[in-house]
Amino acid sequence: MNVLTKPEDAAAIVAELGRRAREAAVALRNASTEAKNRALADAARLIRAETAAILAANAKDIEAAKAAGMTEALQDRLLLNDARVEGMAKGLDDIVALPDPVGAEIESWTRPNGLAISRVRVPIGIIGVIYEARPNVTADAGALCIKSGNVVVLRGGSDSFHSSRAIVELLRRALKDAGLPEDCVQLVPTTDRAAVGEMLRATGWLDLIVPRGGRSLIDRVTEESRVPVLRHYDGICHVYVDRDADIAMATDVVANAKMRRVSVCGAAETLLVDRAALDTHLMPVLSKLHELGCEVRGDSEVQKRDPKATAATEKDWRTEYLAPVISVATVDGVDGAIRHIATFGSQHTESIITGNEATARRFLAEVDSAIVMHNASTQFADGGEFGLGAEIGISTNRMHARGPVGLVELTTYKNIVRGKGTTRP
Amino acid sequence: MNVLTKPEDAAAIVAELGRRAREAAVALRNASTEAKNRALADAARLIRAETAAILAANAKDIEAAKAAGMTEALQDRLLLNDARVEGMAKGLDDIVALPDPVGAEIESWTRPNGLAISRVRVPIGIIGVIYEARPNVTADAGALCIKSGNVVVLRGGSDSFHSSRAIVELLRRALKDAGLPEDCVQLVPTTDRAAVGEMLRATGWLDLIVPRGGRSLIDRVTEESRVPVLRHYDGICHVYVDRDADIAMATDVVANAKMRRVSVCGAAETLLVDRAALDTHLMPVLSKLHELGCEVRGDSEVQKRDPKATAATEKDWRTEYLAPVISVATVDGVDGAIRHIATFGSQHTESIITGNEATARRFLAEVDSAIVMHNASTQFADGGEFGLGAEIGISTNRMHARGPVGLVELTTYKNIVRGKGTTRP
Repeated sequence: MNVLTKPEDAAAIVAELGRRAREAAVALRNASTEAKNRALADAARLIRAETAAILAANAKDIEAAKAAGMTEALQDRLLLNDARVEGMAKGLDDIVALPDPVGAEIESWTRPNGLAISRVRVPIGIIGVIYEARPNVTADAGALCIKSGNVVVLRGGSDSFHSSRAIVELLRRALKDAGLPEDCVQLVPTTDRAAVGEMLRATGWLDLIVPRGGRSLIDRVTEESRVPVLRHYDGICHVYVDRDADIAMATDVVANAKMRRVSVCGAAETLLVDRAALDTHLMPVLSKLHELGCEVRGDSEVQKRDPKATAATEKDWRTEYLAPVISVATVDGVDGAIRHIATFGSQHTESIITGNEATARRFLAEVDSAIVMHNASTQFADGGEFGLGAEIGISTNRMHARGPVGLVELTTYKNIVRGKGTTRP
Repeated sequence: MNVLTKPEDAAAIVAELGRRAREAAVALRNASTEAKNRALADAARLIRAETAAILAANAKDIEAAKAAGMTEALQDRLLLNDARVEGMAKGLDDIVALPDPVGAEIESWTRPNGLAISRVRVPIGIIGVIYEARPNVTADAGALCIKSGNVVVLRGGSDSFHSSRAIVELLRRALKDAGLPEDCVQLVPTTDRAAVGEMLRATGWLDLIVPRGGRSLIDRVTEESRVPVLRHYDGICHVYVDRDADIAMATDVVANAKMRRVSVCGAAETLLVDRAALDTHLMPVLSKLHELGCEVRGDSEVQKRDPKATAATEKDWRTEYLAPVISVATVDGVDGAIRHIATFGSQHTESIITGNEATARRFLAEVDSAIVMHNASTQFADGGEFGLGAEIGISTNRMHARGPVGLVELTTYKNIVRGKGTTRP
């Protein structure tokens, strides 16, 4: 593995990545949809054809991980097999099928002086993606950036270095064959952590950093970066069961929101129950959760009714379990739910279950989260489920993009003004 | 003037501003258009009624500025008079008349599983505006934020402290009378520079910083801020005169782009002339500039033809003069112009003058600036001229908003998802 130790080396390496990225960006910005799709389709073909080579590179990473005593769970994230490689190739094919956002007109209008103004989507420019063990991010992020006209500099986890390098080589080969610069996709060729620091200071050429990983990575990037960051922070998602909720619907939706997959960012972590629904709705919902193997931590009202519930503390209201555990709080109607979410939420995804349209409208208007839902499972917080196709992540930023970030959200716009020799008085 | 020196004080003051801002933000986010308009119209009325008090406060600032030896030009920026106060009040009336962007649906679609998804504009949240001597920014920025549902914390220049305080007091009185929290607008009550540092680190409650001022302010904010920044950097704007340009149109547009007002960010700084147009277009354009009192600095081809032109150096291509000076470079057609702009431009505003639609299309597509124009003066780079109404500035960011930032650009969106008890398989 190409590990460097001298900080000067990291600086020089990142500067060279930048020089190449800037050159590639000019061509990619103006590339035709056809050329981009050709490169992506070819990359999918190469990934399928070179499955053995990818798996061999991955085996090196797995071997090193085992030697380093990596946990089974992390090893599973790192592991590639035939099905997972096919999944990557399929992901590229899916991105080929998505519409190209570049060049689309967002809006247009004409001024009284005759100036015709339009806003047209253009690529953001050069995006740095900093991620951890999952090698499939290499293909996903690379392809999303290519399709949206953005040059990407990938900084994968050191654990997945060989796997990522094998995948990047195929993307670059496909780019070249399609007549696009291979430097549209570059992998930081060192696992030196100093290279990350260099990227975070590269305001001269890097337009955006997308960190994908655990809290400590996001924290480091947020603290150190001088480059704008599109980030995903906590997903402390809430489901509020209102007095006017259908009991069967509440039971289904809460069970799905919490237990379908407990490890995704859209999984519900806290159930809020209307005080007026405690005696009718609470136990059907909790019984179903118990049946599915979910631990329940509740306030005193909940404990009074559910003998299996343990005591929730304030820390529970602030915890993203990502596990089969749910905290349950009693609130005074929709106002109480809105207040609880404002106090303890992470502005990710919240859902209200109610048959009352007026109550739903208040919740949807006043809960200030990236995604607010009515009678739907929080597990729909996902680019694919939104119909965006692939996503590079869910943004909990307030600026630029909130919620799922797909191709469109990876673009910005320019203002085009057309006159007839028009001058300003 | 309330100048504090202990850094602890600045930290405590800014923390208290934050506490109040967060409380006010909940009410303002959900305020009706009517309430916001009532507050703004009332503020305009109060500003007119209290002109004498505002001028008295401004006189204190001017007196201190004179004593400190401030230049005449800066004193003029600081000075208020009846006409300028009326201009502020008129500015508020204009913002009342603009449509409220909050709650507007950007797009909506339905998924095959029946989920109805929409993206709806919501306020960004809490915005910090850090500005220099111009006291009118207090009213403009305050009103734009109120109308777009954003709480604003204003940090005016110490030179304009009394003027800004007088204006903020009237805005707060109007907010209160309209039933909105007066803390929707707060002025940092100290001129201690440490307070700016505290704002730049206030990621816990501040959603956006908008610096308005000179290069050194922007540089400090860019370097230090942990809060996202919407900034306006250099405006090294170019006009390219193509071989297919109408000579009279080129002459008019260049003269307007450079000389209408030389101090605005959209003023042209560099003229690019197609080598194929040197003998036909150059001298008519330059003669007009000379006639208007503009200094010309050109490359050797320009100097050969214009005896009054002095020699331009590479530094000229990188200079925003904001003065009656223009640099003139010969380029090889539209490709040369695109290359020159990519190398030396600041991605603000560039215009092509040509009668050739294909050439114009290439320029508009390939020049990667916030605003690209065809047959129009770069001096139209302005929110009012775009029809946005008032603007808080021109963004040279690539993310979130590019070009003029008006009410719409001061919002973000939330994703609203409506189901029928929908769960994810």
